[in-house]
Amino acid sequence: MNDILDKLAATLEARKGANPETSYVARLYAQGLDAILKKVGEEAAETLIAAKGGERGQLVYEVADLWFHTLVLLASQGLGPRDVLAELARREGVSGIVEKASRRES
Amino acid sequence: MNDILDKLAATLEARKGANPETSYVARLYAQGLDAILKKVGEEAAETLIAAKGGERGQLVYEVADLWFHTLVLLASQGLGPRDVLAELARREGVSGIVEKASRRES
Amino acid sequence: MNDILDKLAATLEARKGANPETSYVARLYAQGLDAILKKVGEEAAETLIAAKGGERGQLVYEVADLWFHTLVLLASQGLGPRDVLAELARREGVSGIVEKASRRES
Amino acid sequence: MNDILDKLAATLEARKGANPETSYVARLYAQGLDAILKKVGEEAAETLIAAKGGERGQLVYEVADLWFHTLVLLASQGLGPRDVLAELARREGVSGIVEKASRRES
Repeated sequence: MNDILDKLAATLEARKGANPETSYVARLYAQGLDAILKKVGEEAAETLIAAKGGERGQLVYEVADLWFHTLVLLASQGLGPRDVLAELARREGVSGIVEKASRRES
Repeated sequence: MNDILDKLAATLEARKGANPETSYVARLYAQGLDAILKKVGEEAAETLIAAKGGERGQLVYEVADLWFHTLVLLASQGLGPRDVLAELARREGVSGIVEKASRRES
Repeated sequence: MNDILDKLAATLEARKGANPETSYVARLYAQGLDAILKKVGEEAAETLIAAKGGERGQLVYEVADLWFHTLVLLASQGLGPRDVLAELARREGVSGIVEKASRRES
Repeated sequence: MNDILDKLAATLEARKGANPETSYVARLYAQGLDAILKKVGEEAAETLIAAKGGERGQLVYEVADLWFHTLVLLASQGLGPRDVLAELARREGVSGIVEKASRRES
């Protein structure tokens, strides 16, 4: 199951050579960073709305959309899910992400 | 590497019994859904800001923060990363998430 | 100049009886609260992106879009700009909004 | 009532010379654009959360917070509420903002 992020990253990489007319992701790449960020902001808003709506299936759907568009963002910058997972692992490994976070301001 | 999400989910589950005074995540749980959603919105904004700032390390850091707080959100609703990965796999499996997405309106 | 908010509020009120096929605002009303909130989230994201982009004309344009959609949101709930201005005046009047804000946590 | 935006703009301008230790707004200016944008994103999220919560007083409160922080953003860029009102008036004046908006894609 967990390798789906790697599969997605490979698909997103392959889409860099795809036709913007037929590929949604290629179109986002072609439109540029601001268009991708607009989608990330939009999906974050939809995640909040779904969570308040209280339907769990809808929440999963919107979080999937949010993660997907952050993966597109990462790919557009030459990054991938392993960079994010490594950062999460680093936090968990050093002292536990929760403890680390608890020392933060807010 | 990929099992970090499972590890994090286990940690977040364990934090449901932790002391809000000493655990950041237990404090978020105790403050309730709106406090968690506020953090998700905040981290989404920081992801946009970091992406526009152009420093890749900062972008990875903020996306990790965003994913982390969506995991807290999922855990608070009795959900976890495998629900999101299953949704992403379903899209990729059926017809390819990219193709599916390309048929969407915007 | 300042009465533009009142004029807009009157227009938005009038649109409650308009045809969703020909009026953008009537269409938003018809789609419901979640659709309006999605637009508010989207325009907030565009405000951040424009501010980081550094072009002042674009920033003004996006803030106008953001205010406009919060006005649609208010109208959909039977509220208007005067409710928001009264709240801002109340804060300024009591002790100065800045001082009030300075006593806040974050 | 409508002149509250001008009063606020004057206050925000005056705060450019204030002490960040005692003035919340002066602290935001000193922290810079990213800190201000983070607040705008946060208040937008809280607006969505309040709207879904269904309490009208809370919604007015959060929209006031959102407008206030967009005013801080504008002030930090040498802009003010009259720039936004002029843009809204321009749209309303030319052909009606609603009609204009209705010709937009989404």
